[in-house]
Amino acid sequence: MNMSRARERLVVVGGDAAGMSAASQARRLRGPDELEIVAFERGHFTSYSACGIPYWVGGDVSERDRLIARTPEEHRARDIDLRLRTEVTELDPDGQRVRARDLESGEESWTSYDRLVIATGARPIRPDMPGADAAGVHGVQTLDDGQALLDTLEGTRGRRAVVVGAGYIGVEMAEALIKRGYEVTVVNRGSEPMSTLDPDMGRLVHEAMEGLGITMVNDAEVTKILTGEDGAVRAVVTEDREFPADVVVLGIGVRPETALAKAAGLPLGSHGGLLTDRSMRVRGHEDIWSGGDCVEVLDLVSGQERHVPLGTHANKHGQVIGTNVGGGYATFPGVVGTAVSKVCDLEIARTGLREKDAHRVGLRFEAVTIESTSRAGYYPNASAMTVKMLAEHRTGRLLGVQIVGREGAGKRVDIAAVALTAGMTVEQMTALDLGYAPPFSPVWDPVLVAARKAAAKVRGSV
Amino acid sequence: MNMSRARERLVVVGGDAAGMSAASQARRLRGPDELEIVAFERGHFTSYSACGIPYWVGGDVSERDRLIARTPEEHRARDIDLRLRTEVTELDPDGQRVRARDLESGEESWTSYDRLVIATGARPIRPDMPGADAAGVHGVQTLDDGQALLDTLEGTRGRRAVVVGAGYIGVEMAEALIKRGYEVTVVNRGSEPMSTLDPDMGRLVHEAMEGLGITMVNDAEVTKILTGEDGAVRAVVTEDREFPADVVVLGIGVRPETALAKAAGLPLGSHGGLLTDRSMRVRGHEDIWSGGDCVEVLDLVSGQERHVPLGTHANKHGQVIGTNVGGGYATFPGVVGTAVSKVCDLEIARTGLREKDAHRVGLRFEAVTIESTSRAGYYPNASAMTVKMLAEHRTGRLLGVQIVGREGAGKRVDIAAVALTAGMTVEQMTALDLGYAPPFSPVWDPVLVAARKAAAKVRGSV
Repeated sequence: MNMSRARERLVVVGGDAAGMSAASQARRLRGPDELEIVAFERGHFTSYSACGIPYWVGGDVSERDRLIARTPEEHRARDIDLRLRTEVTELDPDGQRVRARDLESGEESWTSYDRLVIATGARPIRPDMPGADAAGVHGVQTLDDGQALLDTLEGTRGRRAVVVGAGYIGVEMAEALIKRGYEVTVVNRGSEPMSTLDPDMGRLVHEAMEGLGITMVNDAEVTKILTGEDGAVRAVVTEDREFPADVVVLGIGVRPETALAKAAGLPLGSHGGLLTDRSMRVRGHEDIWSGGDCVEVLDLVSGQERHVPLGTHANKHGQVIGTNVGGGYATFPGVVGTAVSKVCDLEIARTGLREKDAHRVGLRFEAVTIESTSRAGYYPNASAMTVKMLAEHRTGRLLGVQIVGREGAGKRVDIAAVALTAGMTVEQMTALDLGYAPPFSPVWDPVLVAARKAAAKVRGSV
Repeated sequence: MNMSRARERLVVVGGDAAGMSAASQARRLRGPDELEIVAFERGHFTSYSACGIPYWVGGDVSERDRLIARTPEEHRARDIDLRLRTEVTELDPDGQRVRARDLESGEESWTSYDRLVIATGARPIRPDMPGADAAGVHGVQTLDDGQALLDTLEGTRGRRAVVVGAGYIGVEMAEALIKRGYEVTVVNRGSEPMSTLDPDMGRLVHEAMEGLGITMVNDAEVTKILTGEDGAVRAVVTEDREFPADVVVLGIGVRPETALAKAAGLPLGSHGGLLTDRSMRVRGHEDIWSGGDCVEVLDLVSGQERHVPLGTHANKHGQVIGTNVGGGYATFPGVVGTAVSKVCDLEIARTGLREKDAHRVGLRFEAVTIESTSRAGYYPNASAMTVKMLAEHRTGRLLGVQIVGREGAGKRVDIAAVALTAGMTVEQMTALDLGYAPPFSPVWDPVLVAARKAAAKVRGSV
């Protein structure tokens, strides 16, 4: 089947952010006479913003197509042989080929490659319990999922929504459903929402969500979903309670989609994600790259691998892979674990390690929490903000920051993200020359107030 | 006069941010039985936010006292012997004493010190031209200035305001006067407003100001101010034009207030500010410290001293001085030159070097400018933002960033401020793990888009 050819073939498995960024960047560096690019995508869409789905459901984004950064036609116009509704069913690293099935015709065939990019993303965790597949129960991972949810919302008279899970997707979906006029209950397994924060900071989110009219139920494990005579969801049941529901959204996280990689014997980490080197090449495989939600990434603060499914990383990975595959040089050094989110006007941000992360990796720390404001106290609309900061015991090295507040709180975490990347101590941070003017910040930025308190605590406890 | 006493005496000259922060921090570390603190202030107020004056004048801040962080009574309650309306008229470093005049009685007397803090601030540049002292012509440096301007605004029927100078104070005062319903003309000596930006970025500010209904006159030197028969201002005159004015605000910058220090032989830099070491001690003087608007600070990017009159630095200096005088240890490493400002909803930010700064200090650079948005493009209220980035030729070290945009533009400069402090290259910056979610940022933050373009330009030009 392999025709004699001077040009190489790049095969990309998965047509969303990481895969298509890689394909696009490779094409930018090498023309179609040098590099043939074949991309397989099992769904209907390419290069879309899954992170935007809650805002489409909530009505902030008017239509689905606004979430699509680049259409299949646009990719094809750049000489990428994109095969939609075609699912790769087997990887054969030794034979340098992949097997794919056309989901319409059912036909399968092998495609050989010189270089392979695995960008299979993540799959939502779906609880294995009665009723989980009932009508009216929705995940929000893909554009198809989002459309199905919107169809349910339009076809259902009841206004009671239950969101299972209180992480980013859960709280963002709670906002979306509040905006559509639903009575929203969030059922959460953990002791507080946003388990990516320490519980004391999660408590602030909990209180704010209740202030927004969202019913927050913590420490509650969903055991089953009840359906009515029509087969549609009727209630969500936990060990000791029952929550009536006309629609249920599952937001309990995702796992790396690495079944094919595992079957092919590629190296996976403890979180189930593919392991790569700094150039995003799969460890031990010269001609296979991987990026996006299906890989694990190095956490620069803990020194260990994590799974961080985020569009911004997927795009960076794709850029790095495409550059390397295209004959250039680029690396992805790792992450510090930055994330921002919002529920209505509440902004939630974190970077670096939580208390339990630090414990787990053997780092002793001092933790401080301060209250400040987004602008000078006398300036209109100065809003309260809580900043928690962790610094390593003795060295004072910054380990993590969590922020909960209103407008102006979320992106302040970037200050700490850069400081973490640079390995700064909290003492060094106290002298940071941050932008100050009354409409933008108090004379001591809240992050600096936290750094001062953390530095004092480090000194006091040496 | 020096009574035998075990306790030391700290004398502070100047009762605003730097001086009173130093006094307060020293008091926190050493009680009144160990340290006597005498502070002289020639005005009526202490510890106020001069940066807040434009917002008070514009009506965003309801009353003067909201700008006062700590009143004289509060300082006195903490055992600081604060002498208001008392002007220090001579420093005698050899005799370890200062001479002060009570501005009410005219009486003068010497006060000895063990340690001295000079925090005399800056004085506004007042043009030496006919009419500069006429009624209706105002600076906005002190609370008394602000009150005088408000009195003029209330007592004047005309609605034509001319602002001389288009730096931070000028543009902020333009906003304040627009908010009060004035027809505002800004007369500017430079080719574009905001000379703290490169002219190409200043041009964006120019266009936005005109969009706000402000008349912007560039390349115009004011030669005189005309007064009417009542002695009040009538017009501002440049070489070739005349601008009718019912009120004039001077915002043409400030100089370090170091006449006393100069007379006492203390070391001044090329900008007229006191020169200190890292502990904010005046060079060559064991027992004299200085901070705030009267000192020069080390610019960490250029390696040279600059004069940066900003409340946020003054507070940090005061904190460092107070800690050292109080027996602790603290340093102020320098600045990177970060500043943010706004005119109505236009946000303007800068950090590091402009093109001409880089030229002047012998740094060759690559400059790039990009357009992006504050949020994901599909998210409501995503607003356009222009980011200019300078990177050193060959090494790729970040040299400076300028941002002009709307909501969410200004404080993004903090990302670059921390990166500059850490000495990052633009290539390193492309991998920064910044907060991403559609309401907060595009998937590539605008600062990262600029870093990618700058990194490519550095690579392409090696």
